[in-house]
Amino acid sequence: MFDVKDAKAGVTFPKGFKAAGVKAGIKKSGNLDVAVIYTEKEAAVAGTFTQNAVAAAPVFASKAVVATGTAHAITANAGCANACTGEQGNQDAHAMQTITAEALGCEPDDVIVASTGVIGVTLPMDKMENGIRQAVSELSEDGSWNAGHAIITTDTYSKAGSTEFTLGGKPVRLGFIAKGSGMIQPNMATMLCFITTDAAIDQKLLQKALSEVVDVTFNMISVDGDMSTNDMVIVLANGEAGNPKVTSEDADYETFKAKLLELCTGIAQRIASDGEGATKFLTVHVSGTKTYEDAKTIAFSVAKSPLVKTAFFGEDPNWGRVICAVGYAGVPMDPEKTVVKFGDIPVYANGVGADCDAEALRKVMEQHDIVIDIDMGESKDKENDATVWTCDFSYEYVKINGEYHT
Amino acid sequence: MFDVKDAKAGVTFPKGFKAAGVKAGIKKSGNLDVAVIYTEKEAAVAGTFTQNAVAAAPVFASKAVVATGTAHAITANAGCANACTGEQGNQDAHAMQTITAEALGCEPDDVIVASTGVIGVTLPMDKMENGIRQAVSELSEDGSWNAGHAIITTDTYSKAGSTEFTLGGKPVRLGFIAKGSGMIQPNMATMLCFITTDAAIDQKLLQKALSEVVDVTFNMISVDGDMSTNDMVIVLANGEAGNPKVTSEDADYETFKAKLLELCTGIAQRIASDGEGATKFLTVHVSGTKTYEDAKTIAFSVAKSPLVKTAFFGEDPNWGRVICAVGYAGVPMDPEKTVVKFGDIPVYANGVGADCDAEALRKVMEQHDIVIDIDMGESKDKENDATVWTCDFSYEYVKINGEYHT
Repeated sequence: MFDVKDAKAGVTFPKGFKAAGVKAGIKKSGNLDVAVIYTEKEAAVAGTFTQNAVAAAPVFASKAVVATGTAHAITANAGCANACTGEQGNQDAHAMQTITAEALGCEPDDVIVASTGVIGVTLPMDKMENGIRQAVSELSEDGSWNAGHAIITTDTYSKAGSTEFTLGGKPVRLGFIAKGSGMIQPNMATMLCFITTDAAIDQKLLQKALSEVVDVTFNMISVDGDMSTNDMVIVLANGEAGNPKVTSEDADYETFKAKLLELCTGIAQRIASDGEGATKFLTVHVSGTKTYEDAKTIAFSVAKSPLVKTAFFGEDPNWGRVICAVGYAGVPMDPEKTVVKFGDIPVYANGVGADCDAEALRKVMEQHDIVIDIDMGESKDKENDATVWTCDFSYEYVKINGEYHT
Repeated sequence: MFDVKDAKAGVTFPKGFKAAGVKAGIKKSGNLDVAVIYTEKEAAVAGTFTQNAVAAAPVFASKAVVATGTAHAITANAGCANACTGEQGNQDAHAMQTITAEALGCEPDDVIVASTGVIGVTLPMDKMENGIRQAVSELSEDGSWNAGHAIITTDTYSKAGSTEFTLGGKPVRLGFIAKGSGMIQPNMATMLCFITTDAAIDQKLLQKALSEVVDVTFNMISVDGDMSTNDMVIVLANGEAGNPKVTSEDADYETFKAKLLELCTGIAQRIASDGEGATKFLTVHVSGTKTYEDAKTIAFSVAKSPLVKTAFFGEDPNWGRVICAVGYAGVPMDPEKTVVKFGDIPVYANGVGADCDAEALRKVMEQHDIVIDIDMGESKDKENDATVWTCDFSYEYVKINGEYHT
């Protein structure tokens, strides 16, 4: 994982951002469920969204905000996804924007909206309205903890963090809150991530950096292979740091993008590691392929295999299931050239199981974090390497998802 | 499911076939584990095999037999897959052929060989040799039951059956034994199916009929999305029925193919229904698409979704997860036109949840066999419909696969 400056700071660590999270009564549990993040100074906004053809109402509303290039606020709720809710859903998403804008004194199209939770149920708008107004009244520089907890569902903890670096001689900050857990998979699955920064950066460059970073971070995790209707990653950049504005792909842009990559890699790993019912965090690293696409295809084939995931749950060094998943990935391969390692221990080479120290291998399997390293032996080009993060498949996963009644 | 003439008859129901199954000590449990099926009269042979790039040694050996066009015998074992066993594995697969041929008085390339079980372990050839010799000595017209039980692994029962019909005025018979359970998925997963028939049919037509039938039966089931290294479907046709030999795609060919389709549909359904830990048998039927490929893609997306499968395990009518899996299948769609039914009850239409009788829906969810019917509303052409058979995801699946140590 990665270092965070101060986990409690989260989205309010960058200058000029306030946040709040309140109990609006949307979650059955009565826990925090409505969050607002706000910057008085207008921010450049960038976003990436679920590619599910059945996208939720807030996804459409927020895409329209990103298209304007600027925003002041994010309003999000957990407990109800506002997905598959038809025209009423669109009206409710827009009402979330209008209510927030009115309370903050900005325009509706300055407000990103996001929802997560049960599909097919309309939002209780009376509760939502009260919740938004209360959250706006409670906005503060200490509000990130509450906001972070208001967006989680079956997550075992709220993901939050921040980092600080220098751009053009000025200290610049990045902060985030995120939620993951079930339905996580490539191309943005029920995953919400809100990133704030006080960097001054051109909106188009912000979007470019975000899109490229998301491709190798959030789009490279898989909990159960399901892609949600609601997911989004949003970045707000309000320029309060006072750095010379990044307007071209210069050294400052590269620094900003590298920090964003570091941050998003950490968030993606935390989301995979906290997948529903997870007891293991698995890093599937594939090298030695002729193309990056081949490596990615093989890595996902292994990371999504229920037989591989249950084997790691059982701490069983069952390399047969791994090489089997490599074999059906659809990428031409030579089993004789392929080498599979668990941790740094080779378990398969030359087409057969490798002789290895059973005791050392047992110790690897007992770890919480395990690397499955697969070298296809077709190329030495490290540029093609792909890494996918996932978790194991446990009784608890079945329990959570078999008992999570609609 | 489908009617079988006499489940005990299995592969020995067609004229001229004998079978046996013995305890050779390859399964740890000590149960039946080596099977031989034999026809003294030379049979036309057809086969389809796993498309996994990491195929097991017996797959290569048996493909070579099918290439000769004729065979006399099938020798199969459970308890050890002879996969990822390198050159030793190839030698052992050939030794299975040689030992069988010597005992029967035929040639090694007359003998199909198949193995299922743990990957990465070489066959105990002393036990195998004794087992094959004993099985050959016990070959009989009552031997199908033992042969069927000798090839199963985590199956809860041995799949076997037979059917009888008329070709050119002569009674003709088909019989089978099959095993399925874990690692089942499209394109032949750890699944073995041996079909015998006394029909007289040209080898090329037999292969054509089998390949076409397998595409819409065995390649349309999914238990966990994993494709095995070892799977195969073999048909032996010895012509003992005395029907005028089928040598063109005439009415007799169509009759034969229709009966083979009926048989293989039933077998595929039984294999899906008996998936590891299964408590529900799910039929995913997709209609109203512009192409068959679209329908197949959507059906597999739903059938392979762990969130859908755990919901049915929990008897939760969670149509949100179904429409979500439809949405990420990658097929362009209009959510407003899509209709989802569980049984005959519409649960999703016009982009939102449908009003339905909750009590009637609860009764559907309590059934063992449930149809998930998805009409995409893009076409009325029934030719494009696709059906995939699968099962739910239970605690037991995780238990079986987390505790099945190598």
